[in-house]
Amino acid sequence: MKNFIYANPTKIIFGKGMIANIASEIPVTSKVLMLYGGGSIKANGIYDQVMNALQNHEVLEFSGVEPNPHYETCLKAVEMIKKHDIDFLLAVGGGSVLDATKFIAAVAQFVGQNPWDILVKHGNNIETALPFGAVITLPATGSEMNSGGVITRASTEEKLAFSSSNTFPQFSVLDPETTYSLPRKQISNGIVDAFVHVVEQYLTTGTENNPLQDYMAESILKVLVHEAPTLMQDDHDYESRANFMWAATWALNGWIACGVEEDWSTHMIGHELTALYGLDHAQTLAIILPGLLQVMKTQKAKKISQLGKTIFNIHETNEDAQLDSTIQAIEQFFHSVGVKTYLSDYGLNAESITPIVDRFRERDWKLGERGNIMADQVNEILKLRL
Amino acid sequence: MKNFIYANPTKIIFGKGMIANIASEIPVTSKVLMLYGGGSIKANGIYDQVMNALQNHEVLEFSGVEPNPHYETCLKAVEMIKKHDIDFLLAVGGGSVLDATKFIAAVAQFVGQNPWDILVKHGNNIETALPFGAVITLPATGSEMNSGGVITRASTEEKLAFSSSNTFPQFSVLDPETTYSLPRKQISNGIVDAFVHVVEQYLTTGTENNPLQDYMAESILKVLVHEAPTLMQDDHDYESRANFMWAATWALNGWIACGVEEDWSTHMIGHELTALYGLDHAQTLAIILPGLLQVMKTQKAKKISQLGKTIFNIHETNEDAQLDSTIQAIEQFFHSVGVKTYLSDYGLNAESITPIVDRFRERDWKLGERGNIMADQVNEILKLRL
Repeated sequence: MKNFIYANPTKIIFGKGMIANIASEIPVTSKVLMLYGGGSIKANGIYDQVMNALQNHEVLEFSGVEPNPHYETCLKAVEMIKKHDIDFLLAVGGGSVLDATKFIAAVAQFVGQNPWDILVKHGNNIETALPFGAVITLPATGSEMNSGGVITRASTEEKLAFSSSNTFPQFSVLDPETTYSLPRKQISNGIVDAFVHVVEQYLTTGTENNPLQDYMAESILKVLVHEAPTLMQDDHDYESRANFMWAATWALNGWIACGVEEDWSTHMIGHELTALYGLDHAQTLAIILPGLLQVMKTQKAKKISQLGKTIFNIHETNEDAQLDSTIQAIEQFFHSVGVKTYLSDYGLNAESITPIVDRFRERDWKLGERGNIMADQVNEILKLRL
Repeated sequence: MKNFIYANPTKIIFGKGMIANIASEIPVTSKVLMLYGGGSIKANGIYDQVMNALQNHEVLEFSGVEPNPHYETCLKAVEMIKKHDIDFLLAVGGGSVLDATKFIAAVAQFVGQNPWDILVKHGNNIETALPFGAVITLPATGSEMNSGGVITRASTEEKLAFSSSNTFPQFSVLDPETTYSLPRKQISNGIVDAFVHVVEQYLTTGTENNPLQDYMAESILKVLVHEAPTLMQDDHDYESRANFMWAATWALNGWIACGVEEDWSTHMIGHELTALYGLDHAQTLAIILPGLLQVMKTQKAKKISQLGKTIFNIHETNEDAQLDSTIQAIEQFFHSVGVKTYLSDYGLNAESITPIVDRFRERDWKLGERGNIMADQVNEILKLRL
């Protein structure tokens, strides 16, 4: 096991009816800014639940946080915070609203000249942030129990990630009933997102001895694969929604990464597809992962084989067949929840690849658990996915 | 899944050489009281590592915290804290030192008249506590990442548990190398203690649907059963010690209990055996658990069977055989690490049972996940273990 430091102070408030609990989590003397996306929380009653819970608090609102939240939007929220002396933020929505709220909380107290520096330095320069909590309505990103986020600068088509020990939510409410009104497409995206989060902290060279982390990673994948058919068929199955929501949270709260290697290259390549061509985050992951596993098959053989056995019950006698069948099973799983896995499915072609490979070459990034996924490998991966 | 609230702010600092990190976790302006047990940390070099790390801090010492720490000893530490204006506590040792430090931290800031009230009210009246951290040297109790403790009043032979959201360690260092010098008996006790902690949060009626918590409980048990032979044969196998240490922490940090039922009756009955007859905590658990499972076999059938399959690979066609074989396998596992499982092994007999049953009858406790383990059932369980 590698040495590690793990701390996660976020209080999880889980279950039906638990939104009411936020009243006692936010000091009644606070001036609260509630941040959300579009109007869906008004249509499905979550807005009313939150407002009802906070009837004794002073609450202002900031709506219009978009998917893949924009830097420019975040700065507008910061202006509002400063103008109205806001001292507590409440994110109500999915991972995008959460990510934006974390960044806004940091920018609101940032002492540097240029808030973009926070993203350039991946959050290492966040010394303090406004306190914030969350009501999560979309199981997917794990943002409700981690300290990271991803922000897009619309003007330059850049998408950058940050994290800081100062940007954990103080609390997050996870009420499975808030997912009942989600479009199926968001459920399927959430399943793929959580699945790939686990894979990126599990499917490495596998030289460490850390059975507890491996078992937990496999457990989350099992829950996702087991619940997927119900999730895609029944919007109101409480137990299925609860298991999905809890699994998605633990897929990316830092725990399964303790003491093991990680390979976030699927996310890093995928982010470019979103930034340049506007694909959904989960779509980019579903495209990239099978290509990455194919290109890195030898290095990742042990763990690919283990995933095939434990999650998809694949037991080929020939090792190469075991690896190929497992990669196929992962891709089929993405298809089973309705997410397409080729660039051409989204109207992209060989020309679309060039600017992505160029970006990797310019930045000279060395990704993967061995630092051997560079521009050439990115090119190879993307070509397999045409 | 049942509704739940989960929060665990303890920062885990895991791995060899990590004791040096405590210097940056404790404000250098603090006046620190280091609490420990006997002289073992001086013999094995841990004392020197801690003192070396804190060479720029002002550190006082309080030694002599006994196994099953005494209320009377804790009050002496509180006197010292008040006399010297101590503002940070550092526990160095096993679960007993940790438990005592939590209680001492609470008593030092307790506003009530009588500190014993904290135990009578199980910690619900702890409004604040001194900050404290830990260097854990004995994997067993999980006290390094939870907010609970057990204190014994020597004068009245009472042993009572408490917990509070105000008594989590701020940090805990888990360095597997600190376990190299432990006597084998403490390793075997630790294995049994961690095993039973998991069972008490897992082996209930099993009507909930919470696969992630169940998988994690089973994962911890698998790690304990897999590592036990190495732990009992090789004092210096780093990976084995690391896996054991990490598993023991997660066996009792509150997580596997989220959203599921619990049955702590093995601990509650066992505590009386320690309070009245001085048995090691783990010995009492090894005695009680097989009897409890036999008496509650019908109610717990589903989960006993599941544990047999997943942990001991028992697959009997006859259900009763499945249950009996599983209970036997658990008892054999305790024997395999050298812990005896009958009252007579410890010089106790039928007369020894009476005062325990009397205590349960007086208190009118209704234990177990269905509240149906009372004095008569305690009597039945203990008679099976003569």
